[in-house]
Amino acid sequence: MAECRAAVVTGFNQPSEIRSVPIPELEPTALLMRVDAATLCGTDVHCWHGRMSSDSLPYIPGHETTGVIVDMNGARSDLLGEPLNEGDRIISTYPHCGHCYYCTVAGEPTRCSNSYAFGRVLCDQPPYLLGGCAEYHYVPPGCDIVRVPAEVPSPLAASAACSLRTIMHGFERLGPLATHETVLVQGCGPVGLYALAVARDRGARKVLVIGAPDSRLQVAREWGADATLNLDEHSDVNARREWALDHTEGRGPDVVIQCATAAAIPEGLEIVRPRGRYLTIGGGDGNITVSANALRDRQIIGVGGSVGRHFYQAVTFLATRQKDFAFEGLISGVYSLDGVSQALQAMAEFREVKPVVFPNT
Amino acid sequence: MAECRAAVVTGFNQPSEIRSVPIPELEPTALLMRVDAATLCGTDVHCWHGRMSSDSLPYIPGHETTGVIVDMNGARSDLLGEPLNEGDRIISTYPHCGHCYYCTVAGEPTRCSNSYAFGRVLCDQPPYLLGGCAEYHYVPPGCDIVRVPAEVPSPLAASAACSLRTIMHGFERLGPLATHETVLVQGCGPVGLYALAVARDRGARKVLVIGAPDSRLQVAREWGADATLNLDEHSDVNARREWALDHTEGRGPDVVIQCATAAAIPEGLEIVRPRGRYLTIGGGDGNITVSANALRDRQIIGVGGSVGRHFYQAVTFLATRQKDFAFEGLISGVYSLDGVSQALQAMAEFREVKPVVFPNT
Amino acid sequence: MAECRAAVVTGFNQPSEIRSVPIPELEPTALLMRVDAATLCGTDVHCWHGRMSSDSLPYIPGHETTGVIVDMNGARSDLLGEPLNEGDRIISTYPHCGHCYYCTVAGEPTRCSNSYAFGRVLCDQPPYLLGGCAEYHYVPPGCDIVRVPAEVPSPLAASAACSLRTIMHGFERLGPLATHETVLVQGCGPVGLYALAVARDRGARKVLVIGAPDSRLQVAREWGADATLNLDEHSDVNARREWALDHTEGRGPDVVIQCATAAAIPEGLEIVRPRGRYLTIGGGDGNITVSANALRDRQIIGVGGSVGRHFYQAVTFLATRQKDFAFEGLISGVYSLDGVSQALQAMAEFREVKPVVFPNT
Amino acid sequence: MAECRAAVVTGFNQPSEIRSVPIPELEPTALLMRVDAATLCGTDVHCWHGRMSSDSLPYIPGHETTGVIVDMNGARSDLLGEPLNEGDRIISTYPHCGHCYYCTVAGEPTRCSNSYAFGRVLCDQPPYLLGGCAEYHYVPPGCDIVRVPAEVPSPLAASAACSLRTIMHGFERLGPLATHETVLVQGCGPVGLYALAVARDRGARKVLVIGAPDSRLQVAREWGADATLNLDEHSDVNARREWALDHTEGRGPDVVIQCATAAAIPEGLEIVRPRGRYLTIGGGDGNITVSANALRDRQIIGVGGSVGRHFYQAVTFLATRQKDFAFEGLISGVYSLDGVSQALQAMAEFREVKPVVFPNT
Repeated sequence: MAECRAAVVTGFNQPSEIRSVPIPELEPTALLMRVDAATLCGTDVHCWHGRMSSDSLPYIPGHETTGVIVDMNGARSDLLGEPLNEGDRIISTYPHCGHCYYCTVAGEPTRCSNSYAFGRVLCDQPPYLLGGCAEYHYVPPGCDIVRVPAEVPSPLAASAACSLRTIMHGFERLGPLATHETVLVQGCGPVGLYALAVARDRGARKVLVIGAPDSRLQVAREWGADATLNLDEHSDVNARREWALDHTEGRGPDVVIQCATAAAIPEGLEIVRPRGRYLTIGGGDGNITVSANALRDRQIIGVGGSVGRHFYQAVTFLATRQKDFAFEGLISGVYSLDGVSQALQAMAEFREVKPVVFPNT
Repeated sequence: MAECRAAVVTGFNQPSEIRSVPIPELEPTALLMRVDAATLCGTDVHCWHGRMSSDSLPYIPGHETTGVIVDMNGARSDLLGEPLNEGDRIISTYPHCGHCYYCTVAGEPTRCSNSYAFGRVLCDQPPYLLGGCAEYHYVPPGCDIVRVPAEVPSPLAASAACSLRTIMHGFERLGPLATHETVLVQGCGPVGLYALAVARDRGARKVLVIGAPDSRLQVAREWGADATLNLDEHSDVNARREWALDHTEGRGPDVVIQCATAAAIPEGLEIVRPRGRYLTIGGGDGNITVSANALRDRQIIGVGGSVGRHFYQAVTFLATRQKDFAFEGLISGVYSLDGVSQALQAMAEFREVKPVVFPNT
Repeated sequence: MAECRAAVVTGFNQPSEIRSVPIPELEPTALLMRVDAATLCGTDVHCWHGRMSSDSLPYIPGHETTGVIVDMNGARSDLLGEPLNEGDRIISTYPHCGHCYYCTVAGEPTRCSNSYAFGRVLCDQPPYLLGGCAEYHYVPPGCDIVRVPAEVPSPLAASAACSLRTIMHGFERLGPLATHETVLVQGCGPVGLYALAVARDRGARKVLVIGAPDSRLQVAREWGADATLNLDEHSDVNARREWALDHTEGRGPDVVIQCATAAAIPEGLEIVRPRGRYLTIGGGDGNITVSANALRDRQIIGVGGSVGRHFYQAVTFLATRQKDFAFEGLISGVYSLDGVSQALQAMAEFREVKPVVFPNT
Repeated sequence: MAECRAAVVTGFNQPSEIRSVPIPELEPTALLMRVDAATLCGTDVHCWHGRMSSDSLPYIPGHETTGVIVDMNGARSDLLGEPLNEGDRIISTYPHCGHCYYCTVAGEPTRCSNSYAFGRVLCDQPPYLLGGCAEYHYVPPGCDIVRVPAEVPSPLAASAACSLRTIMHGFERLGPLATHETVLVQGCGPVGLYALAVARDRGARKVLVIGAPDSRLQVAREWGADATLNLDEHSDVNARREWALDHTEGRGPDVVIQCATAAAIPEGLEIVRPRGRYLTIGGGDGNITVSANALRDRQIIGVGGSVGRHFYQAVTFLATRQKDFAFEGLISGVYSLDGVSQALQAMAEFREVKPVVFPNT
C-alpha cells in the first residue's frame, strides 16, 4: 500500500507531526487528489484546541483544499454534469447522502444526517486522507465536485471551500437585497470581507464594516466599503450604534451580517433596524444575552454548512469578480507541511488570518 | 358639545373611574362608532400597570373594539373599497400614514412611523375617544375599516382586532407550512389558541401545545391539537423537550410559535429542530439568555403590529371557520363600564383570559 | 433467471399482452417489490397512444405503484432515514442522481438530468420491470422510498405517487395561501379533486371548481367546494368568467389551478384576478393563444415532476386527512393484468378516471 | 386664475398645440412643481396614437417628469418622512389611495383601484396639469414624493419615473439572483439597458442582450453585457436560441427579461431554461401564441406599475451607480414644448429612444 506525507495532530495544542499515512483503495466513484493548496480557518484552530464536539485524535487538519485529480474509480462527473478526468483541478464538498430527512423532506441538505466535515477525522483508519494538510486527499462518494477555472489560484479556491461558500449560503437564506438597502458587516476577517464583497456585488446601496485592525479595514475600503469603524478605537457599544444610525438616516441598517463571533450578536441585534434581517455566521458557543425587544421585532437567520451550489457560486464569484475585488489580498502567510501547527498558533494569536499550506512543495 | 360615558384610568394600578368625555367633531373622513363590545388583552394590563413606554394619564383602556357607525364626515369606504354607511358594524386598524419610510420604502406598514395604538392615549384632549371602554369610539382618518359579517358576534370580532390579527401577521411572515410539518405552540391563552387554529387550518401535519391550566388545554384538544402538555405538571424543561422530540420522530418541531411570554423563548429555541423556524409573538421585556448554538442554526421571526389585511383575514377566519373551532369558548367574563378595572385586576391574577366589556348595556 | 407476468404494450393503441418478463439481478441498493396496486392516469393513455416523445416499445405501463419489498441488495433506508426491510409496503420516486446541475446548482431536482419516468421504459432489456402493471417492480438505486402507513390503502397510495405528489409540488411553488384568498380549480378529475382538497386543507377562504360531469362535481362538493360549475351546462366562456367574478366580489380568484388540460389555460388566465397566480398542472401539448394583457399582469407557474418530499407529503396527507375527505371515492374500476388495455381504452373514452390494476390477484 | 404654457394633444396622431392652461388651486397636501425635464417613452407614443383604453382628449403628454416645488398647501413630507419645502427637486408617483382592496388586502398597491396615470388625463378640467409637457405640473394628494439628489440630472431622474422604476418593480417580483445565474435581456432600448444594468448590479454571473441597432448594443457592451446579438443581423429565431444556449452551457438562461414588446414573448419562453423565470415588462397587446410545453415548465412574471419604493430605488440607483454605468448615454434628443409631437413622431419612427422636453427653456 502506497503512503504519503501528512501533517498529523496527535494531541490538542501540540505541534503537528509529519507522518506517513496510507493512500487507501478507492471505493467506486471515489477520487484521489494531489493537494495543491490547503488554507486554514478559525475552525481549524478550534479543532486543534480540542473544542469541537467531534474532535478525535489523530487527524489531519484542513477542510479548505484545492487539489488535482490523480486517480478515479469509475466514471464521475462534476456538479454541472461534465465528466471528470485525471488532471482536473477541483474543490469538493463534504459528502451528503441525498436520501435522508434533511436532504429530501426538509429540503435542507446542508443538515444532511450522514455528512461529516473534513479536517477533523481519524487518520489511522480508512480512508485515512480526509484533511488538506497532506500530499493527497481522498474524496469519498457522495461529494459534489466543482472544477476550478484556470483564472482562480489554488489558495483562493481553497478558501472558497469554506468562508465564501458559507457566505453564499447566507445570502441565499437572506433573500434579495433591494437597491435602497444598507448592509452592515460585523468583522473584517476573510468571512467579513467576503460578505462585504458579495453585498456589494448584489447591489446593496451602502455597505458598512465594523472591525479591526485597520489594515483589514483598509482592504474593506479598497473593496468598496462605504464606511468603516475601527473596533480598537471605538470601544463604546453605544458610540458604534450611533455611528451606524448616522449612516442610515437614523433608522439602522436594513441587514446586519455577523462575521465575527457569536459574542457580537447582542450588539448586532441592537444595531439592525426594526423589522430588519440579522444574518449570523461567525462561530463561537456559550450563552448570549439579548433583549426580548430586539428579538420581537427582527428576523434572525442562523447559517451553517453549505451544499454544492454554494461551492459553485463561490468559485464562480472568484472567477468573474477579480476586477472588482483584489482577492489575493486575503491570503496571509505561506507554510509547508512542517509549519502547520505554527500556522495554527499564529492564527490563535491573531497574527495570521488566512494562511495557506502547500503540501507538495 | 355632546359627551358620553367612559371608563378612565387616572392612575396606574388604580380603579378606573366613570367620566363624561366629550364627543369630538369629526375630521374629514373620520367616523364615530357606538361601541358594541370591547375585549381586553394582556397589553391592557401592562398599560394599567404603567409598564408601556407610551403610557400617559388619563386614558380610556381598550384596543379591541367592535362598534356600529353612528356618524361620518364625508364618504368613506372599507378596505375592500365598498362604501361605508351609518349602521355598519365594524372593527378598525390603528391609523397609518401610507407615506412614511416604513409604509413605502421598506414595505413594512406595520412599523408606520405615524401610527399609534388605541387604548393608551390621553383622553383629556381631542379627539378624546380612542379607547374601547367608552360608549363611543372615534375612528380617525388613516384607519382601515373592516366590516363584521353578521355571523361573527361582536366580542369575537373585537378579539380579532388584536390577538387573531397578530397571528395572521405572524403566519404571513412565517411563510407556507408544508403538509409534513409539525407546529408546536407555546401557550394556550387566546393568542395560543388562535395560533393552534390557524396552524390547523393551514394544513400542519400535527399541532402540539404546551401550556396551562388544563381547562385551556382541553379547549386546545377540542380545537384539534394532536397532543398537549400541561406546564403545571411538567416543570422540567428537559422533560418538555423530550416530549416534543417524541412527537416528532426525534427531530423537533419544524415550527415553534411563542404565544406565552418572552421568557419562553430560550426553551422554544431549544425545542425547534435545527434549521426550523421560530415565531415569537408573546410580549414581555427584559433580557433573554439563549445559546449561541440555537441562534446559529435557526430562523427567528419576531412579530408585532398588523395592518388592514390581517384584520380582514382575522374576521374572515372567524366568519368561515366556526364549524371547525368553537370560537365563543375564548371569551371569559362579561363586564360593564363600571367593572373595567376589576376585569384588568382579574387578568393580572390569571382569573380571566379574555373578558368582554359592553359599554352600552 | 426467474420471470414474472406483466402486461406489455407492444404496439401503440394495441391491446396489451401478458408476457413473461425476467426478474433482474439487483444492483447494489436496488430493491424488488411485489406490486400491490397500480393505478393509471392520463399520461398512461398518452403513452399508449404513442404521443410522448420518450415512447418506446415494448414497455410495461404504470407509473403509480404501491408494492411490498421482497428483495434487497444491501442496506437501504427510506427518505426519513429509517432502515427498510423486506415486507415493508412502499411507493418510490423515479431515480434522481443528486449530483447534476439541476439537482445541485439550480436546486431543482425535479428536473434531474439523469432521471426517467416509470411506465414507459423498454422491458426487453435490464432491468425489465419498470412499470406497475406487472407482478414485480424493480426499484433502481437513486430512488427515494416512502413507507405507506397502514391506514392508507394501496390503490390510494399508488395514486399519491403521481396526481397528489404533483399537487404537493404545485402548492410548494405557489407559496402560501392567505386566509382571504379564493382558489378556483379547473377540472374535477383526480388531479383537480386533490387540488381542491389541498387548497381546502391549506386554508383558502373559498374553493370554486369548474368541471364535468356532475358526478365528479358532487364529489367536489362533498370535499368542501364552496361552489361548482358544470362545464357541460355552461358552454359559454364568458358566462363561466362571470360566475367566477360573482363569487369573488367582481375581482376574480386570487389563484387559479389548471388541472384539466393545457387547452384550459387561456380561459384560466382570463379568470384569475390581475396580479393573481396561475398554477398550470394539467398536460397536453400544441400551441396556446393567450392575450398579451393577461400575461403582463399575472404570474404563471408551470409545474411538472416531483421529488421525494412531495411523495412523502402526499402519503402524509392521505394518512391524516381521511376524516375530511373520502379519498376512496377517487378510485373507479378494478382490473387484473389482463384488463390493462381495456382500462386505458375506458380512460380514453372518459368512462374511467382512476382505474386500479391488481397484478397479483 | 394664473395660467401656464402646455403642449396639448387635441387629436390622435395630430401635432400637439401650445395652449394656455389654468394653474389650479391646490387641494390640501397637494403640490405644484415647475417642470425641469420631461422625458417621453413608448407609452406616450401609444397614447398619441389613441391606442390606450383610457385615452381622452385633450391631454398634456408626459408621465416622466422632474420638477421643482413652487407651491404647497400644507405640510408634506417625502416618502422617507422628511418634510418637503419649496425649491426641492422631486419626482412623484401616481396617486394611490392606501385603503382599497389592492392597497390593503392583496398587498399589491401597484394595482390600486383609485390610481391613474399622468400624461393621459383631460386637461380642460381641474386639476388641468397632469402631464409633464407643461411649464407646471400638479401633484395631487396621495402621491409619494421622492427627492432627487444633486448628482442626478433632471432628465435621468425623469426617466427613472417610468422605465427604471418598472425595472425595480420587476426585479422585486423576480426575487434574488444567485451568483451562478445568467440573465438574458430582450431589447436594448432604455428599459432593456436599465434591466441590463440592474442585473449586473445585482450580481448575475453573465448578462446577455438581444436587440438592435448596433449603436444601442454598443452601449449595452459598455455597461457590462457579456455578449450581445444584433437582431437585424440574426433574423432566424432558432439561430438566436442557439446563441443563447451556447452562452449557457446548453441549458438556456436562468432568467429572461422581456424589455421589447409582447411579440417577443414566444421567443423568450423558448430560450429560458426549463424551470427558469421569465419576466415580461415590455408592452403591446393582441394575442400571443406560445407552446403549452413552455408554459408548463416555466414561471412567467408579468410586471406593470410601480409604487413609491420603486421610484426611490430608481433614484438611488442613478445616484450611486454613475461610476459603473454612463447613464447620460440613455437620453437622446432635446426638445422644447413646441417640439413635443415631433419627438413623438421620431419615436414612432425609431429615430429617438429617450427624448427629453425642457418646458421652461
